[in-house]
Amino acid sequence: MGGRVDSATSAMTMMNPDLRSSILVKTLRREFTDRVPVWFMRQAGRSLPEYREIRGVDSILKVLTKPDLAAEITLQPVRRYGVDAAILYSDIMAPLANLDIGVDIRAGVGPVVEEPFRSIRDVKRLRPLDPSVDLAAMASAVELCVDELAVPLIGFCGGPFTIASYLIEGRPSRSHATVKKLMLEEPNVFHELADRLVDMAIATLTVQVTHGASVVQIFDSWIGTLSPWMFRELVRPHLQRLAYESVQLGVPVIYFGVETAGLLKDLVELGFPALGLDWRVDLASIATRFGSKVALQGNLDPSILLAPTTQVLSATEQILAASSQAPSYVFNLGHGVLPETNPETLAAIVNLVHERGANLRGASEL
Amino acid sequence: MGGRVDSATSAMTMMNPDLRSSILVKTLRREFTDRVPVWFMRQAGRSLPEYREIRGVDSILKVLTKPDLAAEITLQPVRRYGVDAAILYSDIMAPLANLDIGVDIRAGVGPVVEEPFRSIRDVKRLRPLDPSVDLAAMASAVELCVDELAVPLIGFCGGPFTIASYLIEGRPSRSHATVKKLMLEEPNVFHELADRLVDMAIATLTVQVTHGASVVQIFDSWIGTLSPWMFRELVRPHLQRLAYESVQLGVPVIYFGVETAGLLKDLVELGFPALGLDWRVDLASIATRFGSKVALQGNLDPSILLAPTTQVLSATEQILAASSQAPSYVFNLGHGVLPETNPETLAAIVNLVHERGANLRGASEL
Repeated sequence: MGGRVDSATSAMTMMNPDLRSSILVKTLRREFTDRVPVWFMRQAGRSLPEYREIRGVDSILKVLTKPDLAAEITLQPVRRYGVDAAILYSDIMAPLANLDIGVDIRAGVGPVVEEPFRSIRDVKRLRPLDPSVDLAAMASAVELCVDELAVPLIGFCGGPFTIASYLIEGRPSRSHATVKKLMLEEPNVFHELADRLVDMAIATLTVQVTHGASVVQIFDSWIGTLSPWMFRELVRPHLQRLAYESVQLGVPVIYFGVETAGLLKDLVELGFPALGLDWRVDLASIATRFGSKVALQGNLDPSILLAPTTQVLSATEQILAASSQAPSYVFNLGHGVLPETNPETLAAIVNLVHERGANLRGASEL
Repeated sequence: MGGRVDSATSAMTMMNPDLRSSILVKTLRREFTDRVPVWFMRQAGRSLPEYREIRGVDSILKVLTKPDLAAEITLQPVRRYGVDAAILYSDIMAPLANLDIGVDIRAGVGPVVEEPFRSIRDVKRLRPLDPSVDLAAMASAVELCVDELAVPLIGFCGGPFTIASYLIEGRPSRSHATVKKLMLEEPNVFHELADRLVDMAIATLTVQVTHGASVVQIFDSWIGTLSPWMFRELVRPHLQRLAYESVQLGVPVIYFGVETAGLLKDLVELGFPALGLDWRVDLASIATRFGSKVALQGNLDPSILLAPTTQVLSATEQILAASSQAPSYVFNLGHGVLPETNPETLAAIVNLVHERGANLRGASEL
């Protein structure tokens, strides 16, 4: 443990390395690297004792108004695990916090919206972001992080369907029946909302990249609740614009959702350079089908991390073996770290990936 | 509405038709039929006013001790909609109700287990079913149904992973982390449990078929929470036995789970003659890939049924069009009817499928 912390700490004292040559950025750009990079969705926060020590009892939206605290939480897992990237401690709903539309994130529940969106009048309540005000704290947190980091900082935003789902449902939903009903009944309301959410996503990513993020990820967690038909009819055009505009920012863009096995071909065709996979797909066969078109990231089942370390490492080895079919591959979980995960387990995975994940497959032929 | 009820009622007064030549059985046997059969998962119960009228406030396990009531609930949707099959009103946990292991089904929650299974000692609490006692009420309900029905009765049971998940988690779980932990940590405990659950499944299906069910479906709802790796390592052998033994019963067997898009190739290879699909997959491409190997059933998103009828029918048309790639196809939803669904919507879907779903594709070349 000590050794790992020390080496990570010493890495972090290096000043301004060229992050374009970092292993994560190179992998996502599909350039040759000599090993597999690793980071974890939700590596910051919930599962870390050092996080719980400094977190306090405020709502996350309140914490995010304090850039020094958000930056510290972002840096903790990099120090502890020596992962190959930091991911900004934030929330996909954070950019909306300042817009006076009654968005809150309730502990143990998730995002809630006081008056859920149901009409074009509701959509019009969503004014454009004013980055210099609405994203000022986020910009400062990004700067504080990159000042400290020797590895890339990953910025992120929510996908338009996922954010729309929260705004329309008013709270996390299993069936997403209300948002689907509105999409079918009043497609123009949905399209207007999605348009504004893509604008917000681009504004958010732009601030993050401008202030130093070297990679961004789009969390479109609930996209997989849509049938391919609804996806194509109603959401694809918005994601195509998001892909096109986000790629212009000049950093690698990863698109991620869960339960996307039936949508993968459509997602690959959107034009994002990298795709995050949940654990429900066979990495080897996805790598064979799509590995020449996109970089792949994933996909160890986060539930497995609650098992004893021996079994976790064997599952990790299995993923690494499957990944050998993917020319450009980033180790990650298939969704976020569960709060009850033992940090020692994550440390053991990082060690294994760093030891075994040597990428001897040669450069991608892109 | 009146016309539909009348025609269904008159159909039901026919005596003992040969159900082997029914459109559902023929389709599932991959014989030529001149139209597409339709039924709905969860067509009986929750969404029907005539059900709520007779249901009372007892727990479902109590209701299932009254064969006449269970049979009446089973028949209601056939009378109302003129669907091409009845499905027994029961629950995948019902066969365990008599085993004194503290299983209950709580309204608004789902199956709960007083002392969740965690060890081999717990598994040994699961004695084999004594069909003449434990399934006596179910057998009577099946008989009462088939006496009245002019369409096939579908019997069903739970898949071993799904039942094991309830027994081990103790209640419905989003992550299924506890069952996965036990599967990895103590595979022998899981295998012993799954063995007993396959025995129970076969005992249950046997009673249903012996007493008159013409088709059976295995609801393995949560199988899609497993990574392909865990599926292959730990669950596949049990499903292979279940497929082999259930097919011996001499009636068509449908296997169904949700979020299975990443497992479909594995599921097709199990040897079940028919596969139910959730709405997360493109029916046309699944039909092209697997339609020559299995009959397919599905897969309209049940959430869509909350939209106005025009949109529902357009989504239904889309599914029917996609199904033309499948030589043997049964119209259904991608999961159960949601309780808030308007029965008029289901009636409209049945009418559309019966009108438009003419199968002019010729006999399958099996």
